[in-house]
Amino acid sequence: MKIVQHTQEVRRAVREARAQGKTVGLVPTMGALHEGHLSLMRAARKETGFVVASIFVNPTQFGPNEDFKRYPRAMDADARLCEGVGVDLIFAPEPREIYPDGFATYVVQSDLPDGLCGPHRPGHFRGVTTVVTKLFNIVQPDVAYFGQKDYQQAAVIRRMVRDLDMPIEVRVMPIVREADGLAMSSRNRYLSPAERERALCLSRALTEAKKLADAGERSTAALLDAMNRIVRPAVDKVDYISIVHPETLREVGDVSSGAVAAMAVWIGKTRLIDNMILSPARSRQEKNVKRKT
Amino acid sequence: MKIVQHTQEVRRAVREARAQGKTVGLVPTMGALHEGHLSLMRAARKETGFVVASIFVNPTQFGPNEDFKRYPRAMDADARLCEGVGVDLIFAPEPREIYPDGFATYVVQSDLPDGLCGPHRPGHFRGVTTVVTKLFNIVQPDVAYFGQKDYQQAAVIRRMVRDLDMPIEVRVMPIVREADGLAMSSRNRYLSPAERERALCLSRALTEAKKLADAGERSTAALLDAMNRIVRPAVDKVDYISIVHPETLREVGDVSSGAVAAMAVWIGKTRLIDNMILSPARSRQEKNVKRKT
Repeated sequence: MKIVQHTQEVRRAVREARAQGKTVGLVPTMGALHEGHLSLMRAARKETGFVVASIFVNPTQFGPNEDFKRYPRAMDADARLCEGVGVDLIFAPEPREIYPDGFATYVVQSDLPDGLCGPHRPGHFRGVTTVVTKLFNIVQPDVAYFGQKDYQQAAVIRRMVRDLDMPIEVRVMPIVREADGLAMSSRNRYLSPAERERALCLSRALTEAKKLADAGERSTAALLDAMNRIVRPAVDKVDYISIVHPETLREVGDVSSGAVAAMAVWIGKTRLIDNMILSPARSRQEKNVKRKT
Repeated sequence: MKIVQHTQEVRRAVREARAQGKTVGLVPTMGALHEGHLSLMRAARKETGFVVASIFVNPTQFGPNEDFKRYPRAMDADARLCEGVGVDLIFAPEPREIYPDGFATYVVQSDLPDGLCGPHRPGHFRGVTTVVTKLFNIVQPDVAYFGQKDYQQAAVIRRMVRDLDMPIEVRVMPIVREADGLAMSSRNRYLSPAERERALCLSRALTEAKKLADAGERSTAALLDAMNRIVRPAVDKVDYISIVHPETLREVGDVSSGAVAAMAVWIGKTRLIDNMILSPARSRQEKNVKRKT
């Protein structure tokens, strides 16, 4: 496994892999890797011939009062984890490599970024779509892997790929949870033992909503009520607790045509998100068509 | 030569050309082709193995009060001209193919679009960068060709390619002029004979500025004065007459470190632009580095 910092080194390595007839998989990450990330890398390892993992704490997706500075960095441990799951190349650039002086071009999306985390993290999705576009152009993967944990991010990226005709297949892999249900997140490292205990309310509430929906409850008002009763007493602040359509991300009143329960809450100084698909989207034109050339 | 309307047909044709070891050149146009476009296609023919010309009057780069509806369409003549210069494939999509329902992702740039045409055509460069990104992703060319006539557009696209790490070489080809100096433009078709005569003031003013600069005049105030004296009496409205740095597009007071004279004026209902490099940019880091993988 190689670790490189420069765009041209990535291009060279990918070119060599392509010359050997290999397909290329990309797993974009911000490092501080956990089993969620590793599940993406394992999928890439299984499905593509050359696996690139990027490790880059992307400054443009953090707001001015967010946790960019204290976001966990763990390069040595990350490298060992990548090696363990068979990553071929780690791309770990410095911010200057990605955003040189005079950088002035962004990819922006309306619609999908407007709800859920959008209003609470202005500029966040612009940072995500921009850095992912750059990584796509640098690596030129056949397949790129994202986690369902960041449900809205995955939806935004799928839409971006479709809208801009990017010749890349987007795969979204299931949330990986701890044994007690807590969704894996690099930010879980911020939690004290007591906070971590309180953080279990997220998965408990989602599981309860799913149980009620599976038992026949169609009204999202009833499901939201159950979720709020579990979450609100345990957290310090709620950014949102919502049930939205799996593709449009618009709030729905009934789960019948598809629904995802999603939430963002604060426990102490830590913002946590989690989600669960309550019912899949009814078939629409907007299927995840394979756009590979 | 083939003419196709659908993205997937382009991808298929390009894939076949690549399988034959050919490089791919792209000439994005809005049709109503003239010698300026043909010079780009001839360059592509000479420099690449498979030449794609796109013909698409892009609605998103026209403002609500601009000439989208009356912009000249001349598909049959265009196809003959493309065939004559050896284009391999014309991509002539319908607007729905490029902007399907729910389209919501744009490429935006600050800085370079802020001056010159930017304030007079709000949203124009967002439309340009977005459609060019899409064409780049659909065709995946090695080299893309643009005309210097749209100087700001070429600068914006160069910056976009650099900022977003697009694996494409951008070539900007010289302005092609009629024998009497008028820069070739699809919009020249709008001009009555009397308007066409008045339109000669653009190239006359630019040539005069260049002559003065070559004779040693360094002050852009003096050059602008000379240009204004030629242009203002002949046109109905001036959007701008400016002298800017060739790369930053910021107004300069002195031509010594590089200067381009550029203008946009109205003659009747027709908006015309033209420009001329008075002195090349002094070497900067920002050279047109070849970014091909």
